[in-house]
Amino acid sequence: MCPHALIPYKPKNPKTRLSSLLSQEEREAFAFAMLEDVVSAAKDAMCSPVVVGTELFDSELVQVTVKDADLNQTLNEILPTVETGLLILMADLPLADEASIRRVTSTEKDMAIVPGRGGGTNVIFMKEPKKFHVDYYGTSFVKHMKIAADAGLSVEVVDSFRLHTDIDEEDDLVELLIHGTGKSRAYLESLGFSLATETGRVRCVRKR
Amino acid sequence: MCPHALIPYKPKNPKTRLSSLLSQEEREAFAFAMLEDVVSAAKDAMCSPVVVGTELFDSELVQVTVKDADLNQTLNEILPTVETGLLILMADLPLADEASIRRVTSTEKDMAIVPGRGGGTNVIFMKEPKKFHVDYYGTSFVKHMKIAADAGLSVEVVDSFRLHTDIDEEDDLVELLIHGTGKSRAYLESLGFSLATETGRVRCVRKR
Repeated sequence: MCPHALIPYKPKNPKTRLSSLLSQEEREAFAFAMLEDVVSAAKDAMCSPVVVGTELFDSELVQVTVKDADLNQTLNEILPTVETGLLILMADLPLADEASIRRVTSTEKDMAIVPGRGGGTNVIFMKEPKKFHVDYYGTSFVKHMKIAADAGLSVEVVDSFRLHTDIDEEDDLVELLIHGTGKSRAYLESLGFSLATETGRVRCVRKR
Repeated sequence: MCPHALIPYKPKNPKTRLSSLLSQEEREAFAFAMLEDVVSAAKDAMCSPVVVGTELFDSELVQVTVKDADLNQTLNEILPTVETGLLILMADLPLADEASIRRVTSTEKDMAIVPGRGGGTNVIFMKEPKKFHVDYYGTSFVKHMKIAADAGLSVEVVDSFRLHTDIDEEDDLVELLIHGTGKSRAYLESLGFSLATETGRVRCVRKR
């Protein structure tokens, strides 16, 4: 089985919640490094990555461009046209690896979902994409579970912290520095980021 | 197999990072509700829970009391005396369930570890506890991986967001309100907590 993996991606001014730590140029380079890690993991899991970008960017990756920046509409136009299993995987999951993606694509249910931190949806796998539609933003995990139930689709919620950990905020960088092995961790380290142990949870610091 | 599950627990003035949201009395009741959820999950996974508390508390649970509040020392005195597999499971993991704990206790390696959010260690399972010693606090996940490597023990890092999500801070309550099914979620709801959807990640709010 070699399903397509759609990877929504914003090349321009991404990850604005990291603005206090990273310049726009750095955030763009960091987002691209995370995308490369996700693409690499998807390929390791025998999926064919297709980047769904808000604009074309310089890369050899297969790209679909979202004209109107409405991710839900674009994906919901694609879903009914796909006759095979389909994965939708966010671009900010640099801890994704072959094993975690295979747990998703090997589900015995009609679908598998991995919730993101804070109620989002990080990964969806559909055996019959035409029976489902997406509704991202807000507590999309709760919405997607309801859409599946309404459509009579069985869902496995895959319990993976690697796919649960989307990188949006400063605390999330700590997870990447501890558990990451790919380009996005290396990029952070090249900028001078490292772990700092204080009381309670570990934070990250940047030497300039 | 029915290994003991040691559950470190602080009955008095716990979870101080939630002080802005919960009174001391509420934090104590909340911590106890989380403990009950963890104990319930451990029993579902055929483990025998033993609470390692900083003081005795009123409960029918099997308790070991830590005299000197040094968790590491106490656990490291217990480990060499145990001849069977042993689980150490934190008390603030109310999303723990039978499936996630069984993934840990069924490891084919010498040990299994689940990292906590921010570099901690939420769960350790040792087939031969006398070969290992613990070193909690700070980036204990990194320390435990090194201790295992130095002891020649193979380790499976179990990829579970249910066991990765320790409840310490306000954002963590969101995860409990979304994914929890036990007493601690019900307790939060009884205090008036619910999900609030704004831009970006979902937060929790409390009606008083």
